[in-house]
Amino acid sequence: MVSSAEEAAFEVGIKFGTLYHQFAGTPISPASAPSLETAMEEAIENQPYCTDVTVDVLTAALEAELAGGPAAYTELTGRFMEVDVVVDYEGTRAVARMEMDDGYPLMELVEVET
Amino acid sequence: MVSSAEEAAFEVGIKFGTLYHQFAGTPISPASAPSLETAMEEAIENQPYCTDVTVDVLTAALEAELAGGPAAYTELTGRFMEVDVVVDYEGTRAVARMEMDDGYPLMELVEVET
Amino acid sequence: MVSSAEEAAFEVGIKFGTLYHQFAGTPISPASAPSLETAMEEAIENQPYCTDVTVDVLTAALEAELAGGPAAYTELTGRFMEVDVVVDYEGTRAVARMEMDDGYPLMELVEVET
Amino acid sequence: MVSSAEEAAFEVGIKFGTLYHQFAGTPISPASAPSLETAMEEAIENQPYCTDVTVDVLTAALEAELAGGPAAYTELTGRFMEVDVVVDYEGTRAVARMEMDDGYPLMELVEVET
Repeated sequence: MVSSAEEAAFEVGIKFGTLYHQFAGTPISPASAPSLETAMEEAIENQPYCTDVTVDVLTAALEAELAGGPAAYTELTGRFMEVDVVVDYEGTRAVARMEMDDGYPLMELVEVET
Repeated sequence: MVSSAEEAAFEVGIKFGTLYHQFAGTPISPASAPSLETAMEEAIENQPYCTDVTVDVLTAALEAELAGGPAAYTELTGRFMEVDVVVDYEGTRAVARMEMDDGYPLMELVEVET
Repeated sequence: MVSSAEEAAFEVGIKFGTLYHQFAGTPISPASAPSLETAMEEAIENQPYCTDVTVDVLTAALEAELAGGPAAYTELTGRFMEVDVVVDYEGTRAVARMEMDDGYPLMELVEVET
Repeated sequence: MVSSAEEAAFEVGIKFGTLYHQFAGTPISPASAPSLETAMEEAIENQPYCTDVTVDVLTAALEAELAGGPAAYTELTGRFMEVDVVVDYEGTRAVARMEMDDGYPLMELVEVET
């Protein structure tokens, strides 16, 4: 048997894996970042039980990366975004977050509320 | 030796492969289609030599697909979009297009102009 | 506070979202299916807490799809695979499964064992 | 009108864009690299006109990356692979290659032979 809290946690995990691996590698520049943020949010919000997705592309980190080389764009990776996802599974809310932690993008389950 | 016309054709090919395989599989609904169109266009326009990308999500095809089942979204595939890409490689222009042809998404090199 | 059971469920969800959205869209034929199965399994088993991944490409479904048209390959989607993933989060085991359910690929949390 | 040489160059470009953006972001370790190399080769060889794909994961570069941190895997990017693709379009052969050039993955059209 699986509890609603476990189901909600499972669902929010699916959304994170989806968002990251669907969009990592996308060509991105400071100018194109806003449209990609919106598209990622709206795409993932289509998935079942998903009530809210917020993607924040870290423009300063992106600009710092590009300042070091000849290219005007790079590929999206976890270093360049912070993401919050909220799922509501039949009344149980799960919240997860991705941000950099000591040089690695860390996906963290923040809370599950029955 | 490789001619400018061949280089331009190569570059527009890269853009098509990138666009299709970066974004195929993205959760999409009629409501989220416009933001994904814009994000695909701006992402690919970041790539070298790429001057113009136009993505048209086929909303009617998307709605027909969803009308047949319980889900409110599906995954983006070639059946649901038409794409035009223009590349300018050092003065040589290459134009390519993707559209459905007898049930298959066909990527076609439309013209190369020196 | 988040329990170990919820963490395990979150982690197994991440693995499913990753597997599906990293590899959906890959060109696949009956001949290339075995190498993709192995690569998907070994790729996802790299992720934290993931102890076992089994991917079964449904060769009969793939052959039926290809029999209906001129192409010798298609794109991988949920219709063509069944997947089992096991996660061990600090002693708590979570098991999830993806299979077709009434025409849709359903990702299901099968059990969480403390 | 489009020449066979331009068509061949277009087709080999599609293969490179596909390979890179389908598989970039895949979790990879030195142990899982061989199965991913094989799967990438066989997947892309399914595509029209594609006669040969060779993917060489740069294990030394991968090990150097992992030696600098706590993780046992990373994400596949252009820094970790060299790729050769050969296309035969109705008797016209096009060859392209991806390798690192001054810190950037460069996709290069090597030759087109009528």
